[in-house]
Amino acid sequence: MLRGGSTGIIALGVPDVSSPYFAEFLAHLVREAERYAWRVLVHIIPDSRASDRLLRQGIRQHQVDGLIVSPLSFSGDLDAREDSTPLVILGERAAAARVDSVGIDDAAATRAATAHLAEVGCRRIAVLAGRRSSGGGAFPTRLLGYRQALKTAGLALDEQLVIPTEAERRADGHSAMTALMLRDGPPDGVVCANDLLAAGALRALLAAGRRVPQDTAVVGLGGTEGGAFFTPTLTSVHQDKAQIARLALALLKRRTTHPETSGSQALQVPFRMVVRQSTAGAGRAVPAPHQDIRPPLEP
Amino acid sequence: MLRGGSTGIIALGVPDVSSPYFAEFLAHLVREAERYAWRVLVHIIPDSRASDRLLRQGIRQHQVDGLIVSPLSFSGDLDAREDSTPLVILGERAAAARVDSVGIDDAAATRAATAHLAEVGCRRIAVLAGRRSSGGGAFPTRLLGYRQALKTAGLALDEQLVIPTEAERRADGHSAMTALMLRDGPPDGVVCANDLLAAGALRALLAAGRRVPQDTAVVGLGGTEGGAFFTPTLTSVHQDKAQIARLALALLKRRTTHPETSGSQALQVPFRMVVRQSTAGAGRAVPAPHQDIRPPLEP
Repeated sequence: MLRGGSTGIIALGVPDVSSPYFAEFLAHLVREAERYAWRVLVHIIPDSRASDRLLRQGIRQHQVDGLIVSPLSFSGDLDAREDSTPLVILGERAAAARVDSVGIDDAAATRAATAHLAEVGCRRIAVLAGRRSSGGGAFPTRLLGYRQALKTAGLALDEQLVIPTEAERRADGHSAMTALMLRDGPPDGVVCANDLLAAGALRALLAAGRRVPQDTAVVGLGGTEGGAFFTPTLTSVHQDKAQIARLALALLKRRTTHPETSGSQALQVPFRMVVRQSTAGAGRAVPAPHQDIRPPLEP
Repeated sequence: MLRGGSTGIIALGVPDVSSPYFAEFLAHLVREAERYAWRVLVHIIPDSRASDRLLRQGIRQHQVDGLIVSPLSFSGDLDAREDSTPLVILGERAAAARVDSVGIDDAAATRAATAHLAEVGCRRIAVLAGRRSSGGGAFPTRLLGYRQALKTAGLALDEQLVIPTEAERRADGHSAMTALMLRDGPPDGVVCANDLLAAGALRALLAAGRRVPQDTAVVGLGGTEGGAFFTPTLTSVHQDKAQIARLALALLKRRTTHPETSGSQALQVPFRMVVRQSTAGAGRAVPAPHQDIRPPLEP
């Protein structure tokens, strides 16, 4: 797309803007974008095809100064983009993609969550691993972190405890957890790919009369605001959404100001375990807090 | 603002896009706006002054085809708008404002929530009434409905149980409920102006060892998705956010197509009580479901 100067508008492309993670991120992004006099337009990505199309073709019919996208997959070859709009990917970038990105280390985050459950004494740890993306994406890296943590803790891997979910909403967590409880040898700990899945899993466990954390401990990923108000309160791997927004905007600004910049940057933002009642209430030991894992930001 | 044809962009102005109510509404709005080939830009209104400014002056520096705004107050005189962008207000319009609006009947919704608590046997019903807006807005209409329901149920009004909150987030509900519990004669039922306040109130009650609903029943307003996954699950007055989005867009489209249309429309969308465990669990009677209150839509 030929560009005739700034439009003052950037677009955020996300699978589900009603998800607390993205809603909180959007609130930060809108506020932080004011520094650049950018307004934020919301684009919803219903499926992998739409995700791929957005990455390849951009927002059609509308000129925007930049795109910030949390893709459902990296199945497309980003080198084949037909759109020249500056782009920043949320999440770890696929290794081959030459595009700017900001995210957390998903393998390390899932490893920390799994290790935490092992530390509080869980021996059969399940993972509600979220959407099985068609290429790249967080699913395989999450599984990697889960497996690494089991190995370090000396726990056997039981593939029956690895549960992909169709979507990543509360109802998906609820049905996955309900199915898990019906099996022989149900889990005594569950790592959830986001806090919504964790909310659903918690509800399924408590409705079935299981005690959390005594019978089953639950940890989420994302650290959204609601978890502090669940009963029991939710342990989660917290991500600094304001920082992710700031860095995504800074990358986008650099790219719009210097479109000729070659190479790309993959920034990682630190995360931290926020330990609450869902893993560390009565009957479970409270482990020493994990050290924040802070990979150095690339220059 | 002189307008040189369509921009294909409308703006949604809300106080807090990370609030589940607005996040869910936004998701519906973005999807429904596709029918009109409109993209949605998000504008955050941090305070009453910003709210007033948005209504008077519109989105400065950006032409948009229309504005959908959930104002923090109606303190401004809408007749004095300096901006000609088509406008739809979310919520009941101030009586004097000649502007299109879509909302629910806030007095009737609060009345239904309060009456429901009286029906399950509550005798000291508090209301976390939300932000005390500077002019018009939902605060006085909510109080009106609360008072009407108390009167109908033959319950005395105790002004000590009417609690305005600074904002309408979980932490506000938590601190308001904590303060209420410290008083002589704490409430046995609480109506909350939204589900976030209810989440905070629930957490405060349960953390203090109060049983919900046996000791204190809790009802929210808004019917956001998370309430079905709280423990106990949350009774709430459900609003059809997809329908509100559809009607707001239809009004906006009419106004953009026929800017000369005189008069304005105030559409009301029905609501319904969704009764769950926070009011109707063990120890509380489950009342017959309330009839949906469906005021006729204006032509």
